[in-house]
Amino acid sequence: MLIYDFALAPNPARVRAFIKEKGIEVPFQEVKVREGQQHEEPYVTKNPFRLTPFMELDDGTIIAESMAICRYLEEMHPEPNLMGNDAKERAVVEMWNRRVEMDGFSNLGSAARNSMPMFIGRVLPGVKGDQPQSAEVAARGKELVGLFLPKLDAQLANNAFVAGDRFTVADITAMFLLRGAKAQEFDLSACPNIERWFAEVSARPCFS
Amino acid sequence: MLIYDFALAPNPARVRAFIKEKGIEVPFQEVKVREGQQHEEPYVTKNPFRLTPFMELDDGTIIAESMAICRYLEEMHPEPNLMGNDAKERAVVEMWNRRVEMDGFSNLGSAARNSMPMFIGRVLPGVKGDQPQSAEVAARGKELVGLFLPKLDAQLANNAFVAGDRFTVADITAMFLLRGAKAQEFDLSACPNIERWFAEVSARPCFS
Repeated sequence: MLIYDFALAPNPARVRAFIKEKGIEVPFQEVKVREGQQHEEPYVTKNPFRLTPFMELDDGTIIAESMAICRYLEEMHPEPNLMGNDAKERAVVEMWNRRVEMDGFSNLGSAARNSMPMFIGRVLPGVKGDQPQSAEVAARGKELVGLFLPKLDAQLANNAFVAGDRFTVADITAMFLLRGAKAQEFDLSACPNIERWFAEVSARPCFS
Repeated sequence: MLIYDFALAPNPARVRAFIKEKGIEVPFQEVKVREGQQHEEPYVTKNPFRLTPFMELDDGTIIAESMAICRYLEEMHPEPNLMGNDAKERAVVEMWNRRVEMDGFSNLGSAARNSMPMFIGRVLPGVKGDQPQSAEVAARGKELVGLFLPKLDAQLANNAFVAGDRFTVADITAMFLLRGAKAQEFDLSACPNIERWFAEVSARPCFS
C-alpha cells in the first residue's frame, strides 16, 4: 500500500490526521503538486482526477478520494474507531462528516481557489490552466460557509464533538474547515461552541 | 423509521431509487418544499439543515443526509449489496460515488439553482430568501461538470457500471447527474460510453 501525498493541501492533511489518530504506519510518497507532477506520468495514468491524496493497493487498485481511503483504513484497522461502532452511529458520523465537508469544507476550498494568489493557474481542482479566478464564485463559497458555521456551532452547544460524545472523522474534517476559515479570516465571534471545540481538539497529537 | 421526502428533487430521488433497488418497504412522508414547509415546525427542529430527504429513526435520531441514509439502509438490509462486498470494493464504490457526487452532481445542482427560474427564492440550499442567482456561479458549476463527464466516460469505456462490473449506489448518483445534465442540455456526443450506460441502466425498475 502506498499513499500519494501532498504536504500543503487540506485533503491529504485529513488523511494524515486520520492515520495518526489510528496510530498506524502507512508509506507515503510526496507528489510535487506545485510543480504539476500530478499531470505527468506515472501519476496521471494512476489517477486521472489529478488530485491528491490517492492510495495504491498492492494489487494496483487505486482509491482516489480522501474519505474512501479513510474508509478502507478503518476496515483494515478498526481501532480506535473513527467512523462509528454500529449502524446508527456510522450513519450519524457519516451525516456530520458529509455535512461539514459539503456545506463547509468544499465551499471554503472553492473560495480559496477563486481568491488566493497561490491558486492562480490552479483554480479548478485537477486542472492545469489559466482559468481566471472568480470573485463571485469565491463570495458564494464564503457565503455558504457562513451559513453552515452557526449550524455547526449549534451542534457543538450540545455535543462535545461534531458527531456526538467522542472524536470521529467528522472532527478531522471540521478541523481543516476551521483552520481554513481562520486563515480566510471568518468572524467566529458568534460561534463560541466552535471556538471551545477548536481549542480542545487542536491539542490532539493527530493535528500536530 | 420514517423518511421525510420531496418528490421533485434529485437527492430524495436517489434515496428512493436505492430503496427500490433494495426491494424494501420504508414509510415516507412528503414535505411540501415548494411551499416552504421545511422551514416550519416540526421539520425545522428535526432537521436544521432544512433539506430533504431526512430520516427519523424510532428512537428519534435524525439522519439528515442522503448517503448517510443509504449507508444505514445498506447495513439493515445487506442484500442486494449496493455499496461493496468487501473493504476494497467498498472503497472503490465510495470513491466513485463521491467523485460522481462532488465533481458532477453537486456542481450541476449549483448550476441549476443559479440559472433555472424554478429556483428563484431558493438559490441557496436550505435557505428561504431572495439571494440573486449568479450566472457566474452557474457557469462555473457547468464548467466543472463538463470536466468531469469525460472522466466518467473513460471509466465506462472499461467498465459496465460506474464502479466496476455490477450496479451500485454510484450508478444511482450518476443516473441523477446524467438526467440533470440532459435536462440542462449538456452535449454528450463525445461521451458514447456514458450514453451506452445510460440507456442500459435507465431500464432498471428502480428508475421507473
